[in-house]
This record gives sequence, C-alpha cells and structure tokens, in this order.
Amino acid sequence: MIDFKYLDKLISPNESKILMLVIDGLGGLPEKNTGKSELEVANIPNLDELAKRSFCGFSRPVFEGITPGSAPGHLGIFGYNPLKYIAGRGLLEASGIGIDLSPTQIAVRGNFCTFENGKVIDRRAGRISNQRCFDLVNKLNQISVVGIKIDVYPVESHRFVVVFDLDPNVIKKISNNYLNEIDCTDVFCSINTSEDQTFANLVNDFVEKSLEILSNEIDANGILLRGFSREVKLPDMGNRYQLNPIGISSYPMYIGLSKLLGMKSVSVGKSLEQLVSAVEENFNNHDFCFMHYKDTDTKGEDGDFEGKVNAIEAFDKFIPRILDLDYDVIVITGDHSTPAILVGHSWHSVPLLIFNKNIGGDQVKCFNEKEFSTGQLGHIDSFKIMMLALANSGKLKKFEF
Amino acid sequence: MIDFKYLDKLISPNESKILMLVIDGLGGLPEKNTGKSELEVANIPNLDELAKRSFCGFSRPVFEGITPGSAPGHLGIFGYNPLKYIAGRGLLEASGIGIDLSPTQIAVRGNFCTFENGKVIDRRAGRISNQRCFDLVNKLNQISVVGIKIDVYPVESHRFVVVFDLDPNVIKKISNNYLNEIDCTDVFCSINTSEDQTFANLVNDFVEKSLEILSNEIDANGILLRGFSREVKLPDMGNRYQLNPIGISSYPMYIGLSKLLGMKSVSVGKSLEQLVSAVEENFNNHDFCFMHYKDTDTKGEDGDFEGKVNAIEAFDKFIPRILDLDYDVIVITGDHSTPAILVGHSWHSVPLLIFNKNIGGDQVKCFNEKEFSTGQLGHIDSFKIMMLALANSGKLKKFEF
Repeated sequence: MIDFKYLDKLISPNESKILMLVIDGLGGLPEKNTGKSELEVANIPNLDELAKRSFCGFSRPVFEGITPGSAPGHLGIFGYNPLKYIAGRGLLEASGIGIDLSPTQIAVRGNFCTFENGKVIDRRAGRISNQRCFDLVNKLNQISVVGIKIDVYPVESHRFVVVFDLDPNVIKKISNNYLNEIDCTDVFCSINTSEDQTFANLVNDFVEKSLEILSNEIDANGILLRGFSREVKLPDMGNRYQLNPIGISSYPMYIGLSKLLGMKSVSVGKSLEQLVSAVEENFNNHDFCFMHYKDTDTKGEDGDFEGKVNAIEAFDKFIPRILDLDYDVIVITGDHSTPAILVGHSWHSVPLLIFNKNIGGDQVKCFNEKEFSTGQLGHIDSFKIMMLALANSGKLKKFEF
Repeated sequence: MIDFKYLDKLISPNESKILMLVIDGLGGLPEKNTGKSELEVANIPNLDELAKRSFCGFSRPVFEGITPGSAPGHLGIFGYNPLKYIAGRGLLEASGIGIDLSPTQIAVRGNFCTFENGKVIDRRAGRISNQRCFDLVNKLNQISVVGIKIDVYPVESHRFVVVFDLDPNVIKKISNNYLNEIDCTDVFCSINTSEDQTFANLVNDFVEKSLEILSNEIDANGILLRGFSREVKLPDMGNRYQLNPIGISSYPMYIGLSKLLGMKSVSVGKSLEQLVSAVEENFNNHDFCFMHYKDTDTKGEDGDFEGKVNAIEAFDKFIPRILDLDYDVIVITGDHSTPAILVGHSWHSVPLLIFNKNIGGDQVKCFNEKEFSTGQLGHIDSFKIMMLALANSGKLKKFEF
C-alpha cells in the first residue's frame, strides 16, 4: 500500500500514536484431540477483552496459499507489498548485527546444522549456545577461498552471517535473479540458470572447507546457507507515512528490517519484560512503534503446541501495561501463521485486531481464529494494514477530486 | 469492473430489471453507551425481513483505509474503479444543475462557510436556506477578476458552483494534476506543485473579493472551494452493460453523476414519497434504476445519531412498496459509511445486500453491520458490485473458451 498513488496527497500528520504488536507466527490450527487451536486453548482474558473493544479479521501475508518467510511476512505488515519489495534474508541478518553491505558485497544467512550420511537431520543443530556459535564461527573464519574475501559473523544460537566480498568487475555480472536461484537446501549449492556459475562454485568451495573444519563436531557438523543478497534501498517508512517510527526486537533480523525501512531500531533482551519496558520508554518520542515478539513462532516451529500456548499466555499478561500507555491505535497481528501441528510456518491467514480508543468494536468476543472469522475486517492483504492503521489514527484525509 | 476485459463477450441482455438503492453514508459505528450502531438501534422490520431473503456482505468503496468523497464513492457502485475514473466534484455539481462545461471552462464546487479570526468554524454556514444562497450568489456575481470570466450559480442551501472561463491558450497549459493539487481547505488556495501559479492566483483574487463582499454576513461570511475540474468523458453505462439506465435523486450532484455516466436523470423533491413514486413511474421503461437517498448521510455528517436512525427507519417503511414493483434484482448499499460518532464520512466498508427474487438468502437475519459480517458475500470492492447485479439478473453468459 505504500504504492497507493494518492497517499502523499492524503497523508495528514497529527499527534496520535500507533502501536504495532507483531506476534511472530501468531496463527495456529486445531490440535487433533481437542479440535482447538493454540489461541483457543490459551487462557488469555486480556486479549479476549481487547478483542471485544476492537475490529477483528485476518491478514493475508503474501498471496493465497503462500507460506511466507519472516522477511516477506514483515515487509507486508509495514505496507511494502512483498511481491514488489524484496529484502534478502542475508541482507537483513547482516544489517541486524550492524553490518552495512558495500556495493561489492553479498551477504547470506547461515545455520549450523546436523549432517548425517549426506543428509541434514536437524536444520538448527539442536539450537546450540551463543558461545558455541561464536567458537565455530572463529573456525570458519580460518577458511580462505581464492578469488574472494570471506568474513563470517556469529548472530546467535545456530545462526550466523557470511559476507562475500567480490572484485567489482565480477559482482557487476551477478544479477539478483542469479542470487535468488542459488539453492543450498541440501548443503551444497545448486543453481538452476544458464548464467555463469563462478560465484556458486566459490560458495561451494567455502561449503566444502566448512564441512572439513566442522567434521569433528557431533551436532553442528554442517552449514546451511540461504538468502544470498546484495544491498538494497527500500522507501523510507517515516517519510512515506509522515511518522517517526521505532522498531523494538530481541532478534537481529527484525532489527535489520526496521533499520532497512528507516525506523529507529532498539535491540533488547529476550524477555517480554524487556520488550514492553522498551515500548514504555519510547512512547513519548515516537508516534509509531513496532514491537516484535518471537517465542510464539519458535515454539510453533518446534511443534511444541503447549509451549506456543504458554508463549501466548505470557504475552497476554502484558496487555494491561500496554493499554495503560494510551496508544490511539493498536494493531495486533503476526507476520505469518506457525501452527504447532505443522511444525513450521504456514500459508494460513493470520488473526488481525485493530483497536481504536475512540471507536467501539465488532461482535468478536474472544481472541482466536474461529471468533475472528465473524469480525468486520474480513480478510485483508497484509500490505494494506498500514492504511487502516493510518485511517484509524486520523492521519488520512478524505479522497475526492 | 467495467474494466473486466471479457465483459463485452459475456453481456447478454434480457428482460429482467435491476434496482440499485444507494443509501448515502449507510454504514455506521457503535455508539459508546449502547455498543450499537445506527442500523442496530433502528427499528427496521422490512429491511430485516429482506436481509433474510438476500445475500449480504460489505462493499469496500475505494481502498482499505480510504475515506471516499461522494463522487468516488458513487463511481465505484456503477462499476467504475474510482482510482482509474476521475470525475471532479465541480464538474458533477455543474452537470447536476444543467451546466455542460465547454473545453475552456473549469468548474468548482463552493460552500458558503462561517469564517472567524481566520479560521473556518462551520464548513456549511449552518446550512443556510436556498433563498439566502441565491441572494449571496448574486453578490458573488458582481465580482470581476482581470483575465478570466467568472459565473457563480446557486445549487441549494450552502452549496454553489463557480465556472471559470479561460483563454484557450491559458487553459491548454493547465493539467488535471495541477487542478487536483489546488487546496482551498483554509479558504485561500495553496498549491503544491512547481507548475505555473497563474490560475491559482486568479482564484485567490476571486476568494479575496468574495470575502470582502460577504464581510457583513454573520454566518455565511466565507467560501470554500473544492473539486476544480474540467469536462471529462466517461464510458457510457448503458452501452457497457446493455442496459437502459435511469438515475433518480433529489440532489444535483447525483443527477450530474447519472448524466455523466449516460443515465437518463430525474430530479425530484426531497421526500421519500417523491423518490419512490419516481421509481414506480419509471419501472416499465427502464431495466436499471438507481435511486439515491441522502438523509442518512446528512444526519451522519451532523453527528446526529438519532436523526440517522430516524432516516433509516423512514426508508424502511417504503420497502414494501418497492418490493411490490417486482424487480428481479435489488441491490442496497451506500457510497461510503458516515458514522454519526465520527461526524463525517469514514473508511469503513459499507453494508451490501443483494436480493434476487429467484434465489433464497444466506444466514443473515437482520440488516446491520454485525449480522452482515456473517453474510456470504464477504467484502467486495464496490466497483465489482455491478458484476454481481448483472449476474443475478441473468445478463452474464458463462465464461469459457
């Protein structure tokens, strides 16, 4: 919706404040025995009460049937149609740990994984500790490949970033399409284009040497690379909406995304206490605040139904403190669904709630998928949510000629 | 939806008749104390009964979050995507009082307003009488501005039209974009383009002289201009749908819009009795009838919740007479929502009902926003409603190759 062609003419800044609470992987699916989803099982009196005072429905992250990764899932929420605006995972992860790519660099997100008989048996190597990650990254930094400068940076747990620095004459010939086609799902890169394979071969040299260096590790004896990406400039969210936005998260990727969209970015510890405190501390100075809560997605990806229920209940307890802040508009949604029974992201529309302190709600009585399907918002494309947030905060003038 | 590219191939005229009832500003919002919207509070047994026999849902007028003016709101209902087809307010208002613009003319809609200490305190000058409007317009017609011919026409109450006639060499250089950028929200024009400001300066001369002439008036001592527009040709609705359409309204703007789309237009008095009588009189000779009912919007814009409830109840009483006419398809919706609690138009989707005398209804039991959100139509873009009206009347063939 950042592409709505009359937006500049209609934007009308005012004092009201918008809070965007992104509960990662929010949407769920019924567990077989009970027929109830994570949200239905969870005891969430504060979210239920908020739903009664809000308008509810669903956000469609990318397109019907499409299971989004975190980057396209989030881009939509901020009004960037994820089919038009591309920000690679490598770039976001790098940006999140403070690395700004130069024009000759390509970044990629890495996972340490468990590799057995030529197959990946755990994509996250049992979620190793930050210290292990740091130590293993040090080993990878000993690798040298002729014709390319390679730097590896630890992120946290099983996550790291590799930055490849290429000769200006070489990188000139590497298209974004080529980078998107590089597929390392099975550890080594394959690429389905007729373009020159030089870069993919260099990456495979690096992968091969990594496997050698890690060969004595039991759990983290392989690497998976995804999201090869160069620097990219996206329209500045603050300029576009005439807002002074801030992003608050515990995870580098979301910090990277906030920065890329021109938000002030605040990295905090992992607890909800720390996240909500940061929201409170920044209330006065920002009229748009994005807070990212990760635990729901992590538990969903682990197939831990009860863990996801607990993560939702933990979030619910902070709703009163959030409401005390007196935001004019509060949006609650997720970047995608992560149903525990699917042990991963899914294509399902995500519950969407819009609270406007000046307007009552629809007939929805509880915060869950079944109730939300009777809400008055219906299903909307995620990249149109920002339009509703702006409208509800009185920041959009009437459209007429 | 007039842009559906296979429409010509699929249109299949027949004898069936469509009635399009536009209840201006139909959608509302819950009043704080009761938690009920205007439609929920209203005692509307006939509309409730009709809802039981119809398919229900919502119309999205322009785009998520966009609050439409009356012109884009109506264009959508007739199948003209309001982001593609632009008909300026000045043009519509002029056309509605019988003025066809020449290629050298620019029309603008005017409001008499109350102006105090440099601020507009009532955009409608307390809705002055038609006679006052007529007298004040006579005063404005005494104004002369060098380099431009200016004619002012009364419309009714606080509304008037100004037609600027320019030299052919001057008007050639004035783009539609330039006209759209002229903003007189604060009485005097400002314009946010680098284009030549000559025309905006001439308009400001006119505004300045108007303020002088009106300076002794108490309520109507200022003017507000909006919708600077030149003549425009829109595709003919009758040709496009193979219909013989008629538009019935009490207000010039809607008459103007009907004419612009190629409908036969009938202007009647303000009462529902007069509107419905005109529908009855024209039943035999037209297979598409648009009837426009204004009171709901007027009361909503005044923030008069009870008045809007009464206007809805008044409309409800005429439903039996309308049903007696035996239309094959009846569509009821609004051009936008005008919730009394917001004292103006809003961005909310508008209740939409489609009655087909040959087909039963969905599960909706009452005519209101909450019930309609469980209806089978869901949310649809307003410019696709005509496709449903044509389909329900058997005027669209099967789509295949």
